[in-house]
Amino acid sequence: MKVLILGGGGLLGRRLAISLAKRGELRGAKIDQMVLADIVDPKPIEAPFPVSYQPCDIADPGSVAQTIDADTDVIYLLAAVVSAHAEEDLDAGLQVNMMGVLNVLERCRSLGTCPVVVFTSSIAVFGGDTPQPFTDHSLPNPQTSYGAQKAIGEYLVTDYSRRGLIDGRGFRLPTITVRPGKPNRAASSFMSSIFREPLAGETANCPVEPDFKHFYLSPRKCVENLIKGAELKAEDLGKNRCMTMPGRVWSIGEMIEAMTAVTGPAAATRITWQKQPEIDGILKGWQMDIRPERGLALGLEADASFEDNIRIYLEDDAPKT
Amino acid sequence: MKVLILGGGGLLGRRLAISLAKRGELRGAKIDQMVLADIVDPKPIEAPFPVSYQPCDIADPGSVAQTIDADTDVIYLLAAVVSAHAEEDLDAGLQVNMMGVLNVLERCRSLGTCPVVVFTSSIAVFGGDTPQPFTDHSLPNPQTSYGAQKAIGEYLVTDYSRRGLIDGRGFRLPTITVRPGKPNRAASSFMSSIFREPLAGETANCPVEPDFKHFYLSPRKCVENLIKGAELKAEDLGKNRCMTMPGRVWSIGEMIEAMTAVTGPAAATRITWQKQPEIDGILKGWQMDIRPERGLALGLEADASFEDNIRIYLEDDAPKT
Repeated sequence: MKVLILGGGGLLGRRLAISLAKRGELRGAKIDQMVLADIVDPKPIEAPFPVSYQPCDIADPGSVAQTIDADTDVIYLLAAVVSAHAEEDLDAGLQVNMMGVLNVLERCRSLGTCPVVVFTSSIAVFGGDTPQPFTDHSLPNPQTSYGAQKAIGEYLVTDYSRRGLIDGRGFRLPTITVRPGKPNRAASSFMSSIFREPLAGETANCPVEPDFKHFYLSPRKCVENLIKGAELKAEDLGKNRCMTMPGRVWSIGEMIEAMTAVTGPAAATRITWQKQPEIDGILKGWQMDIRPERGLALGLEADASFEDNIRIYLEDDAPKT
Repeated sequence: MKVLILGGGGLLGRRLAISLAKRGELRGAKIDQMVLADIVDPKPIEAPFPVSYQPCDIADPGSVAQTIDADTDVIYLLAAVVSAHAEEDLDAGLQVNMMGVLNVLERCRSLGTCPVVVFTSSIAVFGGDTPQPFTDHSLPNPQTSYGAQKAIGEYLVTDYSRRGLIDGRGFRLPTITVRPGKPNRAASSFMSSIFREPLAGETANCPVEPDFKHFYLSPRKCVENLIKGAELKAEDLGKNRCMTMPGRVWSIGEMIEAMTAVTGPAAATRITWQKQPEIDGILKGWQMDIRPERGLALGLEADASFEDNIRIYLEDDAPKT
């Protein structure tokens, strides 16, 4: 079993690699080789099998061809240009989020090996004029180029699967929080920083009101779901290979209360409340009530509570003092 | 007002051109120039303004650049690879139905003129695991590559419109019947030929049962809707630029009864009933109950009855004896 993680240098790609290394097997077979591919050099991980590190830009078909070979059994397609970046730079978004997906699927097609492809879409596909709650049967009506490109990726994954060129499955990731590290260019970055920074004794800004509701998942549960996602049987996926990965809807106020319940009142006092006009339009469209029914029925899981999510962050990621 | 019809050599493109020539104006402005572009040479039409004929392959960005100029106010994007062809040849479908749409939108973007773009999608976007009836808020879950590529085109049209690069509007065409002429490569071809050929005294085959229900529109009403579609105001289109063009759901049996009601019993006796295994999979997915609510609310129209549709065919198209 050879596993390739495209986007293996990112937060989720790295965590996934570490989890797979600990696990040692996938889809009932021993993992004997792993490739972490990214435009940045992935940091090495420890594993009981050889792990190689491959520079790869999925926007470049030649680079994709060098990275995916006929031995590759499972491909995680996590590489993407994030939301604010894709909104700012339409070309970059199209080249990576749309053509990059096509390049990967075309490479699989030319190899003729029908590998499992686990594609990460996003709840950014939802929005616009589609009535809420958003179910797995709701029309994606994205209001960002990132969301549009992810929706397009979903159609490609389902169609190439229907044609027997890949065995694809796509999961619309909830907003992943609490993320470790630093803010990134995603408009959702504050959804981690208002917990991470205050828990580290620093201030962080929240650009939305406390009643802002959105759909969240911890990094740990997301990685578990990505592993379960690869293990789902094709016949259980039906005629649509893509679905929402389970998560839960919470308001910012509820999440801050959960942080207070777990860690005491000090952290919440370090949050500032300034609007950020440059992302306000995106955020307005992210008030989302989402029902991830298919994913739950297939055995994927959300966090039990946001208190749990905070505890997971403290266990897995918070700098130990 | 300069109007360009990409796919101006096809049935709908040519009818649309003739209707626009008779009308002489669009969106409140006098039409003073029209371009019919296609991979085949469009047949000349009579018009009170200059009409030019341009070879154009939308799969080729250079060809698109030669065809769309800064004076082009309204672009009808009808050019496509049809369903059975796109199913048989994935590359052709991707190059025309996906990249071709992108090429047109990118040309508009580079000109910076934000023309009106009327895109024809298809009810082939519907199907799969999405519960019926299919509304404008239903998830497209196409079971053909053609349907997947049209869904992708819709996302591109809405996103480029949201970004202000085009003023797009997309309409999922019902199956257009009764089409004049000869059978084509579309799997839906029989849906015209079982009326057209018997009405001309010839036999035709029906590969589905009489209770097969599907969603139909006459060519005349389709052209009227394409003209109305160009005239809709951007602000009335909301956050999703694409919708189902009105049509009506009828069973094959009801349609044959309508033919009998209008023309007598002889025609129906010329229909043969043989399955066609090579398109059976596609046709099973086309049992469709569709509700075109947005289009109706915006003033687009279906045929009043299938008797009307048969009469329209006899008036507009049937060889006069």
